[in-house]
Amino acid sequence: MMWREDNSGAGKEPGMRPYVYGVDVGGESVKLGLFSTNGTLLEKWTFPTRRERGGESILPDIAASVQAHMRSAGIDPGDTEGIGLGVPGPVLEDGTVLRCVNLGWDVFNVPQRLNGLTGLRVRAGNDANVAALGEMWRGGGRGTRDLVLITLGTGIGAGAVVNGRLVTGAHGSAGEIGHMPVNENETVPCTCGKRGCLEQYASAAGLVSAAVRVLREHPEQASVLRTAEPLTAKEIFDASAMGDPVARRLTDEVYRLLGRALAAAASVLDPELFVIGGGMSRAGLPLLEGIRKYYRSCAFHASRQTGFRLAELGNDAGIYGAARLLLEE
Amino acid sequence: MMWREDNSGAGKEPGMRPYVYGVDVGGESVKLGLFSTNGTLLEKWTFPTRRERGGESILPDIAASVQAHMRSAGIDPGDTEGIGLGVPGPVLEDGTVLRCVNLGWDVFNVPQRLNGLTGLRVRAGNDANVAALGEMWRGGGRGTRDLVLITLGTGIGAGAVVNGRLVTGAHGSAGEIGHMPVNENETVPCTCGKRGCLEQYASAAGLVSAAVRVLREHPEQASVLRTAEPLTAKEIFDASAMGDPVARRLTDEVYRLLGRALAAAASVLDPELFVIGGGMSRAGLPLLEGIRKYYRSCAFHASRQTGFRLAELGNDAGIYGAARLLLEE
Repeated sequence: MMWREDNSGAGKEPGMRPYVYGVDVGGESVKLGLFSTNGTLLEKWTFPTRRERGGESILPDIAASVQAHMRSAGIDPGDTEGIGLGVPGPVLEDGTVLRCVNLGWDVFNVPQRLNGLTGLRVRAGNDANVAALGEMWRGGGRGTRDLVLITLGTGIGAGAVVNGRLVTGAHGSAGEIGHMPVNENETVPCTCGKRGCLEQYASAAGLVSAAVRVLREHPEQASVLRTAEPLTAKEIFDASAMGDPVARRLTDEVYRLLGRALAAAASVLDPELFVIGGGMSRAGLPLLEGIRKYYRSCAFHASRQTGFRLAELGNDAGIYGAARLLLEE
Repeated sequence: MMWREDNSGAGKEPGMRPYVYGVDVGGESVKLGLFSTNGTLLEKWTFPTRRERGGESILPDIAASVQAHMRSAGIDPGDTEGIGLGVPGPVLEDGTVLRCVNLGWDVFNVPQRLNGLTGLRVRAGNDANVAALGEMWRGGGRGTRDLVLITLGTGIGAGAVVNGRLVTGAHGSAGEIGHMPVNENETVPCTCGKRGCLEQYASAAGLVSAAVRVLREHPEQASVLRTAEPLTAKEIFDASAMGDPVARRLTDEVYRLLGRALAAAASVLDPELFVIGGGMSRAGLPLLEGIRKYYRSCAFHASRQTGFRLAELGNDAGIYGAARLLLEE
């Protein structure tokens, strides 16, 4: 097995045990990774999330899976720093979750409970937040200690790292940039209950909604999007890249909103780097350049040259970040 | 002398030397304070800022003033933790200033130079940023470790503290909330060169400009502000408190913009507390309530109950914060 080579101690951080587990707890599946403590992903696997009865089996399932892995791989408890977890909901600094609707979880301390089941050291954080740590450790943010990751998918997630440490927020809700207020006149509610959040316009779902509305309200405008079935964010970005004028205006509006939102974020945090991830980031450099153009037009002068990079870890950002969270000083 | 009592060691932090100096370097004057390391201001004094020849005398003047104070007060170098400084411009984590226009300073490392002059340990930060540390230590933010201070004066300054540590920013420009973009259609430039910054509308100067414009453009509207000479932000807040309808609309617009800007800041950082300071904060609780009303209407649900308090240290926030900066772990 390829990770066996690391048993020699090669690739571990000085003064650290050789291994750390990173776990990304999703509503559908739990993803686990074994890492060397210097950040090499050695092995990964997954199992379905059992959400029944308030998600009470989820932590025992994780404990059993990690312990089975340790046995089969010959890893002693003394060989591992422990387990880091990313969970889909607000998490306080001490690992207390404040309800994770997607998992059925109420309020309790995750590290305490999982430590009780495994004897291992445990830390937990919000999944979108820890992804930022992951990208800093081994992804698009390597070499920086101050970054904001924004994950553009169906919704918008984000995480901020300041001086190498994750910003958790007093209520576990740092990095909720998707819910930055951007439109006072919105009448349709966001999934969060507010009206006029960034996510309503600049996420994949928001972009598709805007496209449907524009196509319906402007039947006179020719567009390849009229034949796209189903109409997805990918179709819209592809059409924009091909020069379709309706798609161009739609993607430009997304760039404008994201550029302004990141300038607002920079006015608070002044990060060294923005990392753009999530499914929409597959649109690549045109997306990066589009956002940056608007960002530069309204960012404070000292922050105008802040870097923009694409995320690199894809769906593994969560397990990388969870592992890194445990290793935070 | 009252601070002499502290020579006993009473009031110093365990493991710390008894004293620390806090210095607030302004364009007009340099303000200095002697503090016990537990945060009691024991003595303060001031001298004029000599800005001539690139402000080359400023640090030697500070060194001489601190050393003269130490001699006259019988404080040995071994009795003091050192000197913290707040300066009016961007400051990197290591204390490098990136031009302070108000002082005539170019780019250099402040702690290095002042340490060379005094032999004492030195740290430096941006003045508006360190004020946030001051309010956390001994002002309106006592008891919290995650706060955002926003200082509403002629301009708007701000500072963020996360996990008890000041956020500096990769370019020394964290906390530039005054330059958060809020209006895409502005044609008049802000002092920073951009157009449409929060500060253009929600600072004392911005409020007065708005009042002048409204009074000129709506000569039919009766208002006590027409007789105010000179027209200041204080007059407008006073008239608003008395029910003057024009003043009411003007202050309400300031509350709206600040409430939304702080909700945007909370979507990034999720602080435990907002502290509102600066000259405009003399408007007191109506200002606090006005801002909070709009904040709550658009903040993410988990951050909706975030506290709002008035700053308590007034113009001393800078020396408190500078001293605290030196004591940061």
